[in-house]
Amino acid sequence: MSDAFTFSVKARDGRARTGTINTPRGAIRTPAFMPVGTGATVKAMFPEDVAATGADIILGNTYHLMLRPGAERIARLGGLHKFMHWDKPILTDSGGYQVMSLSKLRRITEEGVTFQSHLDGATIALTPERAIEVQCLLGSDIQMVLDECTPFPATRDEAKKSLDLSMRWAARSKTAFKALSAPGQALFGIVQGSVYAELRRQSLDGLVELGFDGYAVGGLSVGEGHDEMVKTVTHTTQLLPEDKPRYLMGAGTPADIIAAVRGGIDMFDCVLPTRNGRNAFAFTEKGPVRLRNNAHINDTGPIETGCDCYCCTNFSRGTLRHFFNSGEMLGPILVSLHNLTFYQRLMAGMRAALKAGQFDDWAKRIDY
Amino acid sequence: MSDAFTFSVKARDGRARTGTINTPRGAIRTPAFMPVGTGATVKAMFPEDVAATGADIILGNTYHLMLRPGAERIARLGGLHKFMHWDKPILTDSGGYQVMSLSKLRRITEEGVTFQSHLDGATIALTPERAIEVQCLLGSDIQMVLDECTPFPATRDEAKKSLDLSMRWAARSKTAFKALSAPGQALFGIVQGSVYAELRRQSLDGLVELGFDGYAVGGLSVGEGHDEMVKTVTHTTQLLPEDKPRYLMGAGTPADIIAAVRGGIDMFDCVLPTRNGRNAFAFTEKGPVRLRNNAHINDTGPIETGCDCYCCTNFSRGTLRHFFNSGEMLGPILVSLHNLTFYQRLMAGMRAALKAGQFDDWAKRIDY
Repeated sequence: MSDAFTFSVKARDGRARTGTINTPRGAIRTPAFMPVGTGATVKAMFPEDVAATGADIILGNTYHLMLRPGAERIARLGGLHKFMHWDKPILTDSGGYQVMSLSKLRRITEEGVTFQSHLDGATIALTPERAIEVQCLLGSDIQMVLDECTPFPATRDEAKKSLDLSMRWAARSKTAFKALSAPGQALFGIVQGSVYAELRRQSLDGLVELGFDGYAVGGLSVGEGHDEMVKTVTHTTQLLPEDKPRYLMGAGTPADIIAAVRGGIDMFDCVLPTRNGRNAFAFTEKGPVRLRNNAHINDTGPIETGCDCYCCTNFSRGTLRHFFNSGEMLGPILVSLHNLTFYQRLMAGMRAALKAGQFDDWAKRIDY
Repeated sequence: MSDAFTFSVKARDGRARTGTINTPRGAIRTPAFMPVGTGATVKAMFPEDVAATGADIILGNTYHLMLRPGAERIARLGGLHKFMHWDKPILTDSGGYQVMSLSKLRRITEEGVTFQSHLDGATIALTPERAIEVQCLLGSDIQMVLDECTPFPATRDEAKKSLDLSMRWAARSKTAFKALSAPGQALFGIVQGSVYAELRRQSLDGLVELGFDGYAVGGLSVGEGHDEMVKTVTHTTQLLPEDKPRYLMGAGTPADIIAAVRGGIDMFDCVLPTRNGRNAFAFTEKGPVRLRNNAHINDTGPIETGCDCYCCTNFSRGTLRHFFNSGEMLGPILVSLHNLTFYQRLMAGMRAALKAGQFDDWAKRIDY
């Protein structure tokens, strides 16, 4: 395995494409879905089972891990891969998004953001340099620059001011990454600019000039709605370099993902398969199945006929309903596993369709 | 595989013995530990992982299953084995013990016990006949007679009155079992009599006269303490038939199990490995490890050095502490798995020591 981080597109269909990201810890087939392992675990899952669903990479949350158990502690225990028993690639976010969504008493300055931990109220400073330092302590394979995730809605002026700050932080992140990172680790920039096409262009022009290993489209899936999200994604990807992976942060539903792949996105992460799985909500090609529903009480069939996952092979809807009804942990475990399998099957289906040049035909058969 | 339920002792060491119970669903190596699968799941465990620890049989709780999801429902969904995806033997209790410990407004008459469900307050009648009917609907391989678990402490008169009622219920249970059971299913009697040696003898004489496929020692692990438990077990097993398996219900700690095997017991069930596992309490040969303890915060070692379980092979105490500290489900899952592995390794160690005629030497090496 080469020490280099590389990306190659194997096939295109319209703006959509399929390819491979190579990293020292293994290849990532794109379009890729990254299960979210917030607290050093994809919730309720054995790492081997996550890999067996087809996941080539998972996401870790810098904000959560820096607060608990702490980046220095994870480094002392051998790094995040060893700590959580996952030897394939890991992408970490910068922590900025969750500072905004979870912590209290945030204060943003030119230097960075100061916040109170949602766990114990401790005052913590996160700068572009510290965000990279934390990610290097974790040892993540793909790291993200610290940015300000522009709130939605934002006026043009607000969005402009925010993206200018993010751009300065991106430059500082890159400098820190150069100093601290190991061979083969990658740093992605994050395009902001809210729903303003001109600002998106400004943002990505600046980032491309700095030069990153990949580009995320940030500031979406924050309430703008599916259509606005697709419009912004499509506009942004048209202007991004063809030879770098593109990552839509925090998306999304199967419909969001399909639309974003059509718009040229290569990478996704979302808590939906595991969070919904823990709440008895199963994804299927025919739409959601809510397993607490009385309709399943005498149902001997699986969540999804034809699904080869461990849950669908061995447990009936009737049993799963009973597990959720009784508060048995095996319910959340099994439906998380099914949902992750469903998401990876969705991605594999897209990759195959893209290779065959039949993306639209494939998408029509999926009923969302 | 023969349709018959048989038991053969392969080796003895003092009163202790090792052997095999054969059932149509597979062999059970004795001394055997049965993980508890109260609500049609050994909590938080995949059935395959339970089997891989070395469990030949698990226990299901009639009380819980008859209330939720209901015995008739499980029968409609294909029986308990299919419902919970476990194709090896299952032993079910009669429900009587949990009526006493969990339900409200119990009323015991000659006919049986009437109680209010702890779930929804519904009034439910459990008779010896219904207890067998429920167990046959579940399709369990080893069934238990309905008895009254004599409270502790009890006067001699109370204990005598209780065991006489249990004896009449045992006879009715056997009649019902003859009418309803399938070939190869077994019915065990339950010796009561509290701590009164003479009453224990009366109870087992009556049961042996009725004739059962195995005999449980009931009314223990209810607060009488280790020494009284061992005394009663040893007294009782001396009088039980040599050619039938003996089961100590609800025990126990590793020390209890070792002492009871020395006293001639073949089968055990207990919630300790899974319940304690969910509460960050791990069993090891060197005593308990409490994983929430700060001492483990930077510990890269496993729960138990040399343990080949999935948890010990792949996760450090430092990571496990983090999982419990963060409320991550993987902590309870992994420590339950370790504890079940520990219990089965304990049983395998005893079986090997008994075959080698070195039980006492083996027991001395275990530090409890």
